[in-house]
Amino acid sequence: MDYQSHPQPLNLATKHQQLPKVLIIRPLMVFKSVETEFSQKFHLVKAWESPLPLDQFLAAHAHDVRAMIASGDTLVNSDVLRHLPSLRCIVTSSAGIDRIDLPECRRCGIVVANAGAVFSEDVADTAVALLIDVLRRVVAADRYVRGGNWLVKGDYPLGSKLGGKRVGIVGLGSIGMEVAKRLEAFGCTISYHSRKAKPSVSFPFYSNVCELATNCDILILCCALNDQTHHMINKEVLLALGKDGVIVNIARGAVIDEKELVRFLAQGDIAGAGLDVFENEPEVPRELFPLDNVVLSPHRAVFTEESIRDSVDLMLANLEAFFSNKPLLSPVENE
Amino acid sequence: MDYQSHPQPLNLATKHQQLPKVLIIRPLMVFKSVETEFSQKFHLVKAWESPLPLDQFLAAHAHDVRAMIASGDTLVNSDVLRHLPSLRCIVTSSAGIDRIDLPECRRCGIVVANAGAVFSEDVADTAVALLIDVLRRVVAADRYVRGGNWLVKGDYPLGSKLGGKRVGIVGLGSIGMEVAKRLEAFGCTISYHSRKAKPSVSFPFYSNVCELATNCDILILCCALNDQTHHMINKEVLLALGKDGVIVNIARGAVIDEKELVRFLAQGDIAGAGLDVFENEPEVPRELFPLDNVVLSPHRAVFTEESIRDSVDLMLANLEAFFSNKPLLSPVENE
Repeated sequence: MDYQSHPQPLNLATKHQQLPKVLIIRPLMVFKSVETEFSQKFHLVKAWESPLPLDQFLAAHAHDVRAMIASGDTLVNSDVLRHLPSLRCIVTSSAGIDRIDLPECRRCGIVVANAGAVFSEDVADTAVALLIDVLRRVVAADRYVRGGNWLVKGDYPLGSKLGGKRVGIVGLGSIGMEVAKRLEAFGCTISYHSRKAKPSVSFPFYSNVCELATNCDILILCCALNDQTHHMINKEVLLALGKDGVIVNIARGAVIDEKELVRFLAQGDIAGAGLDVFENEPEVPRELFPLDNVVLSPHRAVFTEESIRDSVDLMLANLEAFFSNKPLLSPVENE
Repeated sequence: MDYQSHPQPLNLATKHQQLPKVLIIRPLMVFKSVETEFSQKFHLVKAWESPLPLDQFLAAHAHDVRAMIASGDTLVNSDVLRHLPSLRCIVTSSAGIDRIDLPECRRCGIVVANAGAVFSEDVADTAVALLIDVLRRVVAADRYVRGGNWLVKGDYPLGSKLGGKRVGIVGLGSIGMEVAKRLEAFGCTISYHSRKAKPSVSFPFYSNVCELATNCDILILCCALNDQTHHMINKEVLLALGKDGVIVNIARGAVIDEKELVRFLAQGDIAGAGLDVFENEPEVPRELFPLDNVVLSPHRAVFTEESIRDSVDLMLANLEAFFSNKPLLSPVENE
């Protein structure tokens, strides 16, 4: 429902103007299907519908906005925040918050809510699928069958067993825990690297990611992207993981030094990779396209129809909590 | 080591002739790499190395053979058994025993050992990967990325969540139990169909596979192929499963009426399928090749380098047990 181009009866339009203002800079993937729900509760200020440049739009229409919704790819930096002096709450539809300038938010007294654990199960499911797909060559074998090769060339080469593998989880948050829970059911042994050891967790902890790689067959990246994790998986870590090692990345592309990873994969210096994220997505290094030891996923680990619905509900609940002066349901730690 | 074409010192050759004879009709996939191990313990009678037709070879060389090794695709029917009057033990490298005439074996007093649960974990791993791949469109999305479409056409469509799905397992043997264990960790609810209810299992039991399909979102076929299960998944079951239903088959192709399945998939009358086996493999219905809602695996669910090694050890142990008059380690029930 587009209330601007389809005039509504005055009482409805007036009522809408009285709702709390919520800024949206870029449309959310799911927005069209749920816009009505949001519009019934909030006066949506949609920057992308205006022909004005963003800074002019914000200066003209968002001076008094107290809350905004940000998609995962919406950049919320100091340039944007400068135009939003009344902003006190950002609700993002993403679990990742690497596009939001958290120190600047803290300085301005802006609270941030993310998707919390809404997507954790879906991401973990994809991580497991990418891992088995690499070890057991499922995707490459599907290509082999569709190419008509099974009949002509015979059996496809064997893969490697998941059970008994030593899995290192990098970043043991809600996603990492879901990955661990699943892989234990497959008979894997789990250890992890994180900013600090988790007292509530019995898996072995490695403070050094290189040591984790040395002691694991598989690394699964589940951490946030920040200054500490940018290119954390570098040449040294890949060497430590070794020729039989496999990497799964469902975190952010830039957690890995992608150029090095491509080189290691192409030369067989690690065994394989399942990648849902890339440094300059949607660009994917073309050197990966001919490789059978990689599975390439277009940043879809996080989303299913079901989890999108859950995230919409969570965004609505966070905004309602904010405007009712109640605690956010999924606040981002920002200290 | 080919003792027939490379003459050995007399004492070794004589010693070899004194070892218990074991017939092999067709080479096993792994045979070359482990032939030495078998040759040190058994006098191998290799039918495929002879230019004679099989019946003539058996009549000439296998009259006194008491044990044989059969690959999963070796047909052991009454025609073959007729030429093997001394045979008392068949050890197959496969979990499936649909190529062995069990009633005829029973009649002749022949015991059969299969791969037992050696491959169960690998098969279950693949079943889970195929399922997530179908639900989350992993394989089709990989094609999308490799085709350069992500950059040009934008986001790939959303998949469907695994957690919360109602999974019906058809055939709750060691493979089915491993599948159940894994999918419980993903938050699925499990029920099953089997010849009879398992007293030790708390999952809901359906004596009728159609009722199971009606009450499930997903069917995973883990049963043996026999007269009762041949084309068990027919049009009626597929209709009961419905438009949102998904099938994974890691059993045998002929458990499904493949023509019906192809029709249902092509018309979108079920949502998708992950297929490791086919009715006339290595032939795969070409109508499946253009479909994005199927994952096609060339009967590789069962094998990894690790499980092949385990299966070789089990075959050796079964043969040694037989020749020592001890109980087989993985006997096939045949009553």
